[in-house]
Amino acid sequence: MIEKRKHIVEFRDLFFGSGESDALVLDCGKKLRSVNIRYETYGELNTSGTNAILVLHALTGDAHVSGWHTEADRKPGWWNDMIGPGKPIDTNRYYVVCSNVIGGCSGSTGPRSVNPDTGKLYNMDFPVITIADMVRAQHRLMQHLGIKCWLSIIGGSMGGMQALEWATSFPELMESVIPIATTPRLSPQSIAFDWVGREAILTDNNWKNGNYQDNIPENGLATARMLAHITYLSDESMRQKFGRNLQESESYSFDFKRDFAVESYLQYQGQRFVERFDANSYLYISRAMDYFDISAKAGGDLARAFKQVSCPFLVISFSSDWLFPTTQSIDLVKALLKNRIDVSFCEIESSYGHDAFLLEIDVLGKMISDFLRNRLEAVNGR
Amino acid sequence: MIEKRKHIVEFRDLFFGSGESDALVLDCGKKLRSVNIRYETYGELNTSGTNAILVLHALTGDAHVSGWHTEADRKPGWWNDMIGPGKPIDTNRYYVVCSNVIGGCSGSTGPRSVNPDTGKLYNMDFPVITIADMVRAQHRLMQHLGIKCWLSIIGGSMGGMQALEWATSFPELMESVIPIATTPRLSPQSIAFDWVGREAILTDNNWKNGNYQDNIPENGLATARMLAHITYLSDESMRQKFGRNLQESESYSFDFKRDFAVESYLQYQGQRFVERFDANSYLYISRAMDYFDISAKAGGDLARAFKQVSCPFLVISFSSDWLFPTTQSIDLVKALLKNRIDVSFCEIESSYGHDAFLLEIDVLGKMISDFLRNRLEAVNGR
Repeated sequence: MIEKRKHIVEFRDLFFGSGESDALVLDCGKKLRSVNIRYETYGELNTSGTNAILVLHALTGDAHVSGWHTEADRKPGWWNDMIGPGKPIDTNRYYVVCSNVIGGCSGSTGPRSVNPDTGKLYNMDFPVITIADMVRAQHRLMQHLGIKCWLSIIGGSMGGMQALEWATSFPELMESVIPIATTPRLSPQSIAFDWVGREAILTDNNWKNGNYQDNIPENGLATARMLAHITYLSDESMRQKFGRNLQESESYSFDFKRDFAVESYLQYQGQRFVERFDANSYLYISRAMDYFDISAKAGGDLARAFKQVSCPFLVISFSSDWLFPTTQSIDLVKALLKNRIDVSFCEIESSYGHDAFLLEIDVLGKMISDFLRNRLEAVNGR
Repeated sequence: MIEKRKHIVEFRDLFFGSGESDALVLDCGKKLRSVNIRYETYGELNTSGTNAILVLHALTGDAHVSGWHTEADRKPGWWNDMIGPGKPIDTNRYYVVCSNVIGGCSGSTGPRSVNPDTGKLYNMDFPVITIADMVRAQHRLMQHLGIKCWLSIIGGSMGGMQALEWATSFPELMESVIPIATTPRLSPQSIAFDWVGREAILTDNNWKNGNYQDNIPENGLATARMLAHITYLSDESMRQKFGRNLQESESYSFDFKRDFAVESYLQYQGQRFVERFDANSYLYISRAMDYFDISAKAGGDLARAFKQVSCPFLVISFSSDWLFPTTQSIDLVKALLKNRIDVSFCEIESSYGHDAFLLEIDVLGKMISDFLRNRLEAVNGR
């Protein structure tokens, strides 16, 4: 979609926790003081306060979900095709909020923030956080913005984990939940991939126990990203996109440089990533995902974890997503149905793999748009 | 199976190529001189020479496929349950040959061998080799052993690639081929995983452009191995074996050490691997796999690649193998059938993933044993 003009947005910051009583209590038992939450809002909260939507980002996302910060920006927010005036999540109709998770590196407090106790960067002194900790910080933001109840909470991948955490931690604060391409608990295979990615960072000589300065552990971080990137695509999409095509010449180079188009693509992805993301944040956020198991709060009983939940769900998975495959969404759906929750579920046919939640906007947008419209009518009609 | 006594075997070496005319001509155009092939044989070649079987190993395998080298050995050869007296490939009946591939690090000439031109280790001056180069070296061994025709050529994973290369390069030198858990060409997804694994090695500070001495690039090699290991298991087998079980304590440690059983397992696998395998060999052999596309010799036409082939095939895949999934074996089977080749194909139901070819010995062994018996009877009955 070509935009007639760039929709300029700005970010804001919420600062809290300068005092002990106001600090954020974390799952690990520690308290996080002097917390900043970077966030953006789009549209206007209506007078009845019924049109607020919380959007939650994935591992390497940020608060900038839509629009451009300046006319000079090359790229818009990460879900710009989905959110904005006249888009599926229409900001002429809804008030959309998105914030950077704590632990992140895009404005919210994370391992590269200053530790108020020492005046130095936290680095590995930053406490290990969980998805629930991220959600607690977002709850502070909700209170700050004066939102009484979310019309919907929407997230893909790790964003979907946060959405499930919201539903079970604050079941009375939302009218609906839309978990997309996500899982109720990280599988051992995903934990294993995370472990290998972190090993690449932790064994990079530049990492220096997290206390890197100018020489960042870019090799380790790029390797972690390239590995993760393979899990975001599907075998099928890689065949379609790259096949066994060679990048530059017509025959093998007989060396270890990039021969294949897929190698060149991965290298590019790795290089771009280290320019925008922090290695320590990658450690912390991936660890939060490892620890995510929504059933743990009910002793491993997934259905019982949702027993306080009553609002409708729209659960969406993608056929070629092998990172968080449809079977994991079905586990979630079954658990919701056991609680007699009103669940709509759709597996969208797509070859894009896990990344489909960022790419299949046409069909995904229509589905979400219709669902939100129905929810808003139901809520306003009460 | 508990062995009554350890079956002691010994390895041998074939040395060739000390002169220019005798050197091994490689696909890259270079010649490999002073080549050693480490090999083992089991059983006796019968007087008619009809019972010889070539077994080909996978990426990190070696010539030691069966038995023990000494009574003190803790572990037998890598396919000991399959090959030996009274086993599915019965060495009372067959003469079995297995050799370490060139490029390897278990006795055959590879990057850590001495370059006859310089008197120093090759390291990255070792030429980039291909699966076809490995097979050319094995052909020298065949001539040396006085074998006129193989009763069968059998290999799993990269061993299966070599088997396909044998079939198309020397179609008159075998009575049958058994490619197991393999592919006619490496997929872009597999190329991508190989790339990331090599990146971990190449960016290890100890690697030093391949010229490491005592301080080997063990972090990079372990990371590469851990990554590869995930692709050898299945999502299902990881759930069954590890689930989200914690290794030592009953709750999360809130740090980056190994919390989960699957992390502990991977770490163990990585550590054991660096004790037995060489980093430069890993680079060279994985590159050989990347370059493998049996259709390339027929301009990309997989069926035409097998047009000189006439002997029967037994093609076997495993249901949960996502590295070389059944669809890739089916591509192979279709190409063989187009050439009116006698093909038996079986997808074995297994949750073990790619590693199933090393683990599902009962069903795999029965299948191979029956097939070989029929082949031997057919050949001897002529």
